[in-house]
Amino acid sequence: MIHTRAAVQPFRAIDLIRKKRDGGELSRDEIASMVNAYTDGDIPDYQVSAWLMAVVLRGMTRAETAALTDSMLHSGEILDLSSLPAKKVDKHSTGGVGDKTSLVLAPLAAAAGVTVPMISGRGLGHTGGTLDKLEAIPGFNVNLSVDDFRRVLETCGCAMIGQTAEIAPADRKLYALRDVTGTVESPYLICASIMSKKLAEGIDSLVLDVKTGSGAFMKSEEDAVFLAELMVETGEQMGKQVVALITDMDQPLGCMIGNALEVVEVVDVLRGAGPEDLRQLCLELAGWMLHLGGVAGTVEEGKEQSKKLIGSGEALARFRQMVELQGGDPRTIDDPEKLPDARHRMTLPSPKNGFLASLQCEQVGTACVVLGGGRERKEDSVDPAVGIVLHKKVGDAVSAGEPLATIHYNAETRADRARQLLEESYQIADSAAPEKRPLIHRVISRGFGSASDKNREKN
Amino acid sequence: MIHTRAAVQPFRAIDLIRKKRDGGELSRDEIASMVNAYTDGDIPDYQVSAWLMAVVLRGMTRAETAALTDSMLHSGEILDLSSLPAKKVDKHSTGGVGDKTSLVLAPLAAAAGVTVPMISGRGLGHTGGTLDKLEAIPGFNVNLSVDDFRRVLETCGCAMIGQTAEIAPADRKLYALRDVTGTVESPYLICASIMSKKLAEGIDSLVLDVKTGSGAFMKSEEDAVFLAELMVETGEQMGKQVVALITDMDQPLGCMIGNALEVVEVVDVLRGAGPEDLRQLCLELAGWMLHLGGVAGTVEEGKEQSKKLIGSGEALARFRQMVELQGGDPRTIDDPEKLPDARHRMTLPSPKNGFLASLQCEQVGTACVVLGGGRERKEDSVDPAVGIVLHKKVGDAVSAGEPLATIHYNAETRADRARQLLEESYQIADSAAPEKRPLIHRVISRGFGSASDKNREKN
Repeated sequence: MIHTRAAVQPFRAIDLIRKKRDGGELSRDEIASMVNAYTDGDIPDYQVSAWLMAVVLRGMTRAETAALTDSMLHSGEILDLSSLPAKKVDKHSTGGVGDKTSLVLAPLAAAAGVTVPMISGRGLGHTGGTLDKLEAIPGFNVNLSVDDFRRVLETCGCAMIGQTAEIAPADRKLYALRDVTGTVESPYLICASIMSKKLAEGIDSLVLDVKTGSGAFMKSEEDAVFLAELMVETGEQMGKQVVALITDMDQPLGCMIGNALEVVEVVDVLRGAGPEDLRQLCLELAGWMLHLGGVAGTVEEGKEQSKKLIGSGEALARFRQMVELQGGDPRTIDDPEKLPDARHRMTLPSPKNGFLASLQCEQVGTACVVLGGGRERKEDSVDPAVGIVLHKKVGDAVSAGEPLATIHYNAETRADRARQLLEESYQIADSAAPEKRPLIHRVISRGFGSASDKNREKN
Repeated sequence: MIHTRAAVQPFRAIDLIRKKRDGGELSRDEIASMVNAYTDGDIPDYQVSAWLMAVVLRGMTRAETAALTDSMLHSGEILDLSSLPAKKVDKHSTGGVGDKTSLVLAPLAAAAGVTVPMISGRGLGHTGGTLDKLEAIPGFNVNLSVDDFRRVLETCGCAMIGQTAEIAPADRKLYALRDVTGTVESPYLICASIMSKKLAEGIDSLVLDVKTGSGAFMKSEEDAVFLAELMVETGEQMGKQVVALITDMDQPLGCMIGNALEVVEVVDVLRGAGPEDLRQLCLELAGWMLHLGGVAGTVEEGKEQSKKLIGSGEALARFRQMVELQGGDPRTIDDPEKLPDARHRMTLPSPKNGFLASLQCEQVGTACVVLGGGRERKEDSVDPAVGIVLHKKVGDAVSAGEPLATIHYNAETRADRARQLLEESYQIADSAAPEKRPLIHRVISRGFGSASDKNREKN
């Protein structure tokens, strides 16, 4: 074609861009050289962004996805936790609204004898982040050194921190570029980003919670399943046991949204109470973690064990211990009323009698961000106290004037915007919906049964 | 999808990247804002390269292509040649090997009373460039100011210069980025690049010579036709008469390849001699230029007029005048032996009896680049004297030992590499090929008859 200069171009990044642009498959070495050169600053952003867009539109084969994950993983340190005798298992969620399961699962699995070295992220878009929730506990330090992380793990079996500079630096650099070049939305790139960071934790096994529905990044179940299968296979190719649960995010999980409020609900669950959906999902994920961690013969056994550890208070005690070891005030766990609390409350009444037909979940998440519970811009600080408490969930009967939700706020103007978003999120129907969406849509552990998979391999 | 930040992203470049990535059609305003922001340095290279890759893979509609051309055209000055009474017509070739028609056509059409304000380029990849050929004439200045360009045009009806800083700066910036990001090969981007520069010349009409074959950038006729139709329609949408000839570049045009050698052949043609294919193509293109320029009622009449202007010596006199006005030594036109001449000759004998079946044209062009007749890197200087003279063209009978070509060289090592490339380019068959490729494959002037067009609209 016109103006091409391939024959005399000495630098090979352009050849790899062209190869992917034309639908070719890159070798393991080619992908590694691209990732390494970028991490080292040897190729410019503008070449990598063109390559990323070609990946988004041409897709990647399984081998390419595994090679990308591997290159990104090896761009930094991989934690060596071999001195810890127990199996190391982590859980990762693709992000949702009111999803506070990590805070329940880490101490719960640790109480069962599994080591949980959890490296988490912050809120992104309309979704909450585990680090922001932990920081709602006064004094809690998510920025431990690797040595301190290891010490907490040795002492209580779980520790929860943010990504360190040493972990997958290629991902940090690539993610920042993807964020501003429209190249985030690719299952291949998402898989490599998630898996490279998780595998750097030095884990043996991983439980993935891939969300689907109006509050998830993957709105359709098909997209969620495709990503889940990709991550499971990539993990297996790298010698790790990986299972993915496709779970519902068509409405918020549990009833509390907002950082301190979610810690309250975590404590509720660890005390054996809390909303049914949250409780059920935690037990399901814990069952898998205990099973993969080798302390339960089956998932069902893992769930039973988890129930017992909650009933006996051991899981809560483990949470309290971790909070204390990471500098947090353990009295807030004994008495969650000591957590940051917003100055004002505003209730949202139901406009009519009927049944809660649906709740636009992304919009509920955005309402919480608007209150200050998340970031509208990267540099924003988060207000731990604000949030939303839901009094009704999908399927519930409501009467006109009955409170649907309570907004916890500190600033009037923010509350007004949030209330409007929230109001628009509710759909009240005259009769109950014939069937409820399941909480667990599917479990993907190995093999690929989905007929759509072949078509999407290189879409 | 995971990690998206659309809801809180304040900058709109990302929205336009996403829209094109997802196959959407950008509005005229959206395209203009992208082009203008990039030209002004308000958006970074890495966003534009991602967008360009999305354009390469998603394509553009006709309306988008016209909008892009228009934005790039209006990023700089459009020459106002309205003070010149004659119609302004230019010719543009998509690039080939031995293609020296511009040097024949500008003075020929000017001699017929058409104004030819020709802004040309340098050699690119394996192809030669008009500016490099002109500079083989000692003293010839291709860097005239706009005022001097206009003065030469007023005096002799044609002038040939390089792109000025004022013409389509958006194209200069975009082209440099495309060159290093694998985003050159898109008919939409090629069309906008060519047409924005040509329309900035202030022309009324344009004759496009779109090459196809082994020495062209568009190897397949289908690709050449697609690009030609795109350019013809884009030009018409912008109120210009545009015609495109799809012409053969499966072997070099004429017999001389190399800058000074090509000037020799130009003088031959302007004297009524020269190789048949070059002469025929020049007359065909001149016929169209004279017809579009309003000095010939039909293309045939234009060809006849052109033959007369060559026969009478008027076309050659016009060339000599232009050379002199642009600072070149006119004695080299009277006596082409005064042009730069290489120190050494080497002949390439035919290995056997038979017929010249094919000549890998891109490789012949590369052999000339290797000799120093083109640039292997941007910063290389060009040796005007070196080149290749072909003694046989496709279909000719050859005897074992008879010279196929003569290499004109200054450096032994370069000659050896070039000779090897050249040797590999020849295919000698035992019998003559049943049919010859036509010189003019097709003429595209308006309407779109190609069935492939619909499918490719947004490939």
